[in-house]
Amino acid sequence: MRLKLTIAYDGRPFHGWQSQAGGDTVQDHLEKAFGTIDGAKVSVQGSGRTDAGVHALGQVAHVELQRNDLAPAAWCRAVNAHLPPEMRILRAVQCPASFHARFSAKGKTYRYRIWQGPVHHPLEVGRSWQVPISFEVALLREAAGVLCGQHDFRGFSANRGQPDHDTVRTISKIRLKTAGPLVEITFTGDGFLYKMVRLLTGSMIRVAQGRAPLSWLESILQGGTRTSFAAPAEGLYLVRVIY
Amino acid sequence: MRLKLTIAYDGRPFHGWQSQAGGDTVQDHLEKAFGTIDGAKVSVQGSGRTDAGVHALGQVAHVELQRNDLAPAAWCRAVNAHLPPEMRILRAVQCPASFHARFSAKGKTYRYRIWQGPVHHPLEVGRSWQVPISFEVALLREAAGVLCGQHDFRGFSANRGQPDHDTVRTISKIRLKTAGPLVEITFTGDGFLYKMVRLLTGSMIRVAQGRAPLSWLESILQGGTRTSFAAPAEGLYLVRVIY
Repeated sequence: MRLKLTIAYDGRPFHGWQSQAGGDTVQDHLEKAFGTIDGAKVSVQGSGRTDAGVHALGQVAHVELQRNDLAPAAWCRAVNAHLPPEMRILRAVQCPASFHARFSAKGKTYRYRIWQGPVHHPLEVGRSWQVPISFEVALLREAAGVLCGQHDFRGFSANRGQPDHDTVRTISKIRLKTAGPLVEITFTGDGFLYKMVRLLTGSMIRVAQGRAPLSWLESILQGGTRTSFAAPAEGLYLVRVIY
Repeated sequence: MRLKLTIAYDGRPFHGWQSQAGGDTVQDHLEKAFGTIDGAKVSVQGSGRTDAGVHALGQVAHVELQRNDLAPAAWCRAVNAHLPPEMRILRAVQCPASFHARFSAKGKTYRYRIWQGPVHHPLEVGRSWQVPISFEVALLREAAGVLCGQHDFRGFSANRGQPDHDTVRTISKIRLKTAGPLVEITFTGDGFLYKMVRLLTGSMIRVAQGRAPLSWLESILQGGTRTSFAAPAEGLYLVRVIY
């Protein structure tokens, strides 16, 4: 039986999504919990990695199981009981063998939360990026206008040593929402390169602070020279995977 | 110089407000940080204690300082730099020697956050009380109606061994707010007994689940027999102290 899982987690206690030797990643905890109940070695495939500190409201993964005497909701309850409280399967539904959490994905939504002001609220620690130097939300909106659409986003990705190819992506929507000192930027697109949302956010804030012109963003999109202004992991949330 | 401080903290990392031998309480951290800068032993007096796990959005305290070469905003910055990130002074203003954080208080507002549903959201762990058995918000509203006003709240307080006296309080307002699975109950009154908000909330939820009638609340108010249905510390927030 194959299940499609929707998963939420607090990114702080874990070493990111991706399984690693030391364990204590989201994938490690899921594979161990499923394995305990399935009685076999289980592989949980996510829609993509999230770095340490990055949160998920709706990460999606699939899992192939040997046992067929448990309904999806029963799997959900049983596995949740074996997970740390900062990680939960919100929904589990049966899916066809053709469904692949990563390869079937048609797009994603990420949110970046920013706390604007000199004092980070104690209940926002680890959940937003505190920006002490003030910025203009109107300029943030103009920056969003420049970045929306289909572009080669190579300049807004971290080089992981591999050759550049296929770095064209389409951002269909960038939504801004403010509530007091909190500013949320929500990006929806057909896919995001490694560290792309954090590099877009860090660069947008730089422009909104008046430290770089809008044309700087345009030149990065055109020239492909990489920017290194990445916003920190703790403000980033994987909101939704679109299939 | 005497300062009135408005303080916010995440209740989880600390052993409550009140100074204790082992240290690591909110008061201990504040007194140590102020002492470092003032060069003397400093006493920080809060409006009241909060138990371990209870959060504050607007706790108030006063502090008497020897140094008079620092403005309140400079004290605020300097002390914050010596505090753990889960604790911050939001505002510091000079106040007359007659101001006392506890004895000058005319009232308080507390909020209790409840997550209704079988799965506690991972980002709500330690920040709300997960109630898996469903309840009616309409019944919660009726319960609030019974509890509002001036009553002897002895039955909604924890016995700390001392004789009962002066247990009459006035709750001027109980506000209910729902947002999806999240229910917030905000209590404003002229004062609250030890554990009173948690006992009120736990009892209101019991009624809203249909496990006790509204008349049960009335009988506790009239008879003074103590209830023991306290909601856990993690859902409670001290929102505001009124002077």
